[in-house]
Amino acid sequence: MNRADRETAEGILLTDEYQLTMAQLYYRMGLHEKRAQFDHFFRDYPDYGAHKAGFCINAGLEWLLNWMGDAHFREEDIDYLRSQTGRTGRRTFDDDFLNWLQDNGSFDGITMHAIPEGRVVHPNVPLTVVQGPLAMAQILETSLLNHLNYQILIATKAARIHASGRGQLLLEFGLRRAHDRGANAGARAALIGGADFTSNAGMSHVLGYPPKGTHAHSMVQVFMALGEGELEAFRAYADVYPDDCLLLVDTIDTLESGIPNAIKVFEELRREGHEPIGIRLDSGDLAYLSIRAAKMLDDAGFPDASIVLSNNLDELVILQIITQIVEEAPRYGVDPDHLIGRLVYGVGTRLITSWGEPALGGVYKLVAVCDAGEWAPAIKISESPAKTPNPGHKHVWRVYDQRSSATADLLSLDDEDPWEMDEIVLQHPSDHTKYRILHQDEIAEVEPLLVKVLDQGELVYDRPSIEAMRERREADMARLDAGVKRLVNPHIYHVSLTHRLWELKQELTKSALGESRTEH
Amino acid sequence: MNRADRETAEGILLTDEYQLTMAQLYYRMGLHEKRAQFDHFFRDYPDYGAHKAGFCINAGLEWLLNWMGDAHFREEDIDYLRSQTGRTGRRTFDDDFLNWLQDNGSFDGITMHAIPEGRVVHPNVPLTVVQGPLAMAQILETSLLNHLNYQILIATKAARIHASGRGQLLLEFGLRRAHDRGANAGARAALIGGADFTSNAGMSHVLGYPPKGTHAHSMVQVFMALGEGELEAFRAYADVYPDDCLLLVDTIDTLESGIPNAIKVFEELRREGHEPIGIRLDSGDLAYLSIRAAKMLDDAGFPDASIVLSNNLDELVILQIITQIVEEAPRYGVDPDHLIGRLVYGVGTRLITSWGEPALGGVYKLVAVCDAGEWAPAIKISESPAKTPNPGHKHVWRVYDQRSSATADLLSLDDEDPWEMDEIVLQHPSDHTKYRILHQDEIAEVEPLLVKVLDQGELVYDRPSIEAMRERREADMARLDAGVKRLVNPHIYHVSLTHRLWELKQELTKSALGESRTEH
Repeated sequence: MNRADRETAEGILLTDEYQLTMAQLYYRMGLHEKRAQFDHFFRDYPDYGAHKAGFCINAGLEWLLNWMGDAHFREEDIDYLRSQTGRTGRRTFDDDFLNWLQDNGSFDGITMHAIPEGRVVHPNVPLTVVQGPLAMAQILETSLLNHLNYQILIATKAARIHASGRGQLLLEFGLRRAHDRGANAGARAALIGGADFTSNAGMSHVLGYPPKGTHAHSMVQVFMALGEGELEAFRAYADVYPDDCLLLVDTIDTLESGIPNAIKVFEELRREGHEPIGIRLDSGDLAYLSIRAAKMLDDAGFPDASIVLSNNLDELVILQIITQIVEEAPRYGVDPDHLIGRLVYGVGTRLITSWGEPALGGVYKLVAVCDAGEWAPAIKISESPAKTPNPGHKHVWRVYDQRSSATADLLSLDDEDPWEMDEIVLQHPSDHTKYRILHQDEIAEVEPLLVKVLDQGELVYDRPSIEAMRERREADMARLDAGVKRLVNPHIYHVSLTHRLWELKQELTKSALGESRTEH
Repeated sequence: MNRADRETAEGILLTDEYQLTMAQLYYRMGLHEKRAQFDHFFRDYPDYGAHKAGFCINAGLEWLLNWMGDAHFREEDIDYLRSQTGRTGRRTFDDDFLNWLQDNGSFDGITMHAIPEGRVVHPNVPLTVVQGPLAMAQILETSLLNHLNYQILIATKAARIHASGRGQLLLEFGLRRAHDRGANAGARAALIGGADFTSNAGMSHVLGYPPKGTHAHSMVQVFMALGEGELEAFRAYADVYPDDCLLLVDTIDTLESGIPNAIKVFEELRREGHEPIGIRLDSGDLAYLSIRAAKMLDDAGFPDASIVLSNNLDELVILQIITQIVEEAPRYGVDPDHLIGRLVYGVGTRLITSWGEPALGGVYKLVAVCDAGEWAPAIKISESPAKTPNPGHKHVWRVYDQRSSATADLLSLDDEDPWEMDEIVLQHPSDHTKYRILHQDEIAEVEPLLVKVLDQGELVYDRPSIEAMRERREADMARLDAGVKRLVNPHIYHVSLTHRLWELKQELTKSALGESRTEH
C-alpha cells in the first residue's frame, strides 16, 4: 500500500460499511446526536483447544485513544462516500448527512471509561464503556474492537507463556509470522502481558526497550559457502560483539559441531577478558539438547552461560520441556533447577498469533440510549441467556477476600455501592439458581475498576508507561488464586451481578420478547 | 501509536534486530556487498487441525514492492542505532558501519524474481527469489516474510471458503477480529483468494471495490430502547435504503419476529415499486433457519431474496450447512439447489485469522553466495532431510499433462530446460527412492513460474490489478486436479527436483557434515 492509501485505510474509514449506513439512518431519523452507551467486553476466555485461559490481561487502550484523537472525516473520505452508489445507481449517502459528517465526524463528543491496560480482566465485564452521540459511537465500534481485541489476546498469551517459563526471560520473536502490521501491536501487547523484550527493532525503539537478537543460520552458511566453517563464523561474531556473544549452534549439528565450536570461541573470548552470554538452540529435542548443552558448558567452565530456546514454543511446550528437564537432567549430572534458571525463551509464531485461538471474541453492545434526558437501558435477546448483554449503566467492582485475593468481579447498577450493603449477593449472570453471599466481614476490599479516560473527547487520563502496566499486571496476578492461573483446566473466576441488575435484565428480556410476540 | 512512531515502526526498522547485527558483521568482514541469493518459500500447506490445504494462493508481492521502494535508513533510524548499547555499555553499532548504512541502506541493489499474485503455489517452491548485496538482502528478510506470509495464508483460506460455498458470493467481514492493522492486508488477500467484497470501508476504497454492509443488531435495539420495535426499525431502514434493503432478522427471535417483520416491510417496499435484497441470519442453526426462511420468503412471494449467512463460518461449517440443506430442505418443501443458489456468506473471524492455522511457516533461506564472480551454492543442514532447503540458482517450472492439468512443479538448476530433455525425471526432494518419469509425449506444456519484478532495485513489472489476480487464480484452480482441491485430506501435489539439482543437494550436504566433523 502506498502512503496516501495507507492514510485512507487507517483513518476514520477503518470501519465496517454498515456503521456508516446505520449512521445515516440515525441522522435521517433525528437520532444521530442522541447519547447512547456501548459496552465493550468479551464473552469467554481464549480457548486454545487443548487448554483454556482462566484470566485475560487488558491491553490496547492507549493506541485506541491515539487513533480516536486523529481520526476524522477528511474531505477525501467525504468525497469517497459521496461516490458510493447502491444497486440502482442511486447515491448511498446524501449531502445533508455528509455535511453533518464533515462538521461533526470526529470523536470529540465521546466520554469513555476503561479498565487500565495491564490489569487482569474477565468475561462479561465491561472493559471499555463508550457514551456519546449515537452516530459517532456506532462508527467507532469496528475500530475500537480492532484495536482492543488483538492486544488483549496477545497480552493474555504472553502472560501464560511467561508463567509457564517460571518467570525466566521471555523474548518476543514473531514479526515474520505476524499478520502484517499487526506485528507491532502484538509486540507491544506481548511486553504488557509478560515478554521482557522483543526482536522487533522498530517497536523496541518506539517503546523504549532494548531490542534483542544476535544472528541467524544464514551467517554460518555465508562462511560455509565461502569455504570456511562454523568455527570461523563464531569467531567473527565474537570478534565484532565480544561482550554480547550469543551463538546459534544448530546450523550443522548441535552436539557434534555447534556447541563444541561455541565453547572453543568462549574460551578464546575469556582469555581476552570477555564473558560470553551463551548459546541458542533452535531445533531438535530442546529439553534433551539443553541438558546436554548445560553439561558441556558446565564442564568447560561456563556454568552461567545462558541457553536460549526457540522454535515453535508456547506455554504447553515450555511446561513439557521443564517437566522433561526435571526428570532427565540428574541422569546426566545436571542440576535441573540450575538449568531451568539459565534458560531464556524466544517465542515467535505461537505468541504473536495466539496459536490455538487467534481471535478474541470481544464485542461492543448497545446497553442504553438517552431519551429526553432519561437513560433507557437497551437489550439484545440471545437464544442462550449467557450471551444476552447486561443492560444499562453499570459499575464494575473487584471484590477481595480476607486473604487479599480477588474473589469475584461484580457488576452493579450505577447507583449501587457494595460498601453500603450489609452483605453482597453475587448473582450468576444467567442462572438464577446460582448465587453466593459475601458478608462484609469476609471482604477486605472492594475496588472500582473503571477509570474515566475521555470526557467529551478530552483526554482526562495520565497515560501510564508500559513499565507501569507490567507492574499492574504483576500485582493483579499476585492477587489471583493459583487455581485460576492454572494453564490447563483452570478454576472459573466468578463474575456476578447484583440482585437489582439481575432483575433489570430479566424484566427487559421479558418485555422485549413480549413486544415482539404481540407485534404480528 | 502516534504518526511519527508509526513511521519509525513501519519503515526500515520493521525488521528483527539480528538482521542489523549480522549486517554489521558482514560489513566488518568485508562481505556486506558480496551478492547473495535468498529464496522465500513455505515448507508445508496450512494444516487447520481437522483438515489441511492441498494448495496455496500466492499474494502480498505488490505491498512488499511498495514497502521496499520507500524504506531506507533515515537520519532518525541511524541515530537510534547509534544509541544502542550492549551489556557493558559499549555501542552496538560503530560509525563506519552506520555511515555505510546511511549511504547504502536501501533496496536499490536488489534483483527479485517472483511468482505473480493469485497463482496457485506449493511447498518448497521458491515464490520470491532475492539477489543483492548480502547486508541489505539479509535486512530485508523479516519484512519480506511479514508482507508475504500472511497474505498467502489468507488468500489460501479465502479460496477454500469460496470453493466450499459452491462459488456463491463471499463477503469478508473480519476487521473487528483481525490482528490490528493486519486487517487491511487480510482484506486484500481475501479478495485475491476468493472473497468478492469486504465490509472494510477503507480497503474497499483503496482497492476500488464497493464495500458491503447494511445494519447491525444495535439499530434494532435503538428503536426498542426508544419504545418502538423491530418492525419500526426495519421500516426506517427500508425508507432510507429502499433499493438496497437487506435486514438482519435475529435481534429478538428469527422465526417469530425477524422474518415476519422483514416480509411485512418487503411487501410495503414492493407496493412502492422497490425490490428488497434479502435477509441476514447471524445466529442459531443456520442451515435449519435458512430453510425455514426460504420457505417463508417463497410463500410470501420473494423467491429471489438473498439469504446472507454469518457467524463463525469457515469452509467446513459451510460444507456442513450445505450438506444439511440438501438433506433437510425437501421435507419443508424447499428446493435445496434453489436455496443454495440464493445464499451469500459473510465470513469474519475464521477467514481473517485463518482459524486453525493462523500463520504460514514461510522462510527465507540463503541458497547461494557470489565469490569473485562465481556463485557458490549454500546449504543449511537440518535433522530432517525434508527441511534442508534446495541450494543454488534454480528455475521453477509447472508441468501440465495431456489433460492440461498441472501435474507437478519442477525445480531445476538454472542451466536446465525441461523442453530440451527427452524425458523429465521428477525426483522427490528428499527421498531418493521416489521418482517419476514423464516422457515428452505425456507433457502438454511446461511453464516457467518466476517473473523478474526488480532489476537492481528498478521495477520491471507491470503490476496487475486485483481483478487480474483473481482471474489468474481461477485459471490456475481450473487446471488443478479435483483431488488436490479437496477440502479434507487432499491428494498431494508433486513438487520435484531434476536429477542434477538433487545430486547437488546431496553433495553439499555431505560436504557440510564432513567438514564440521573433521573440524574439532
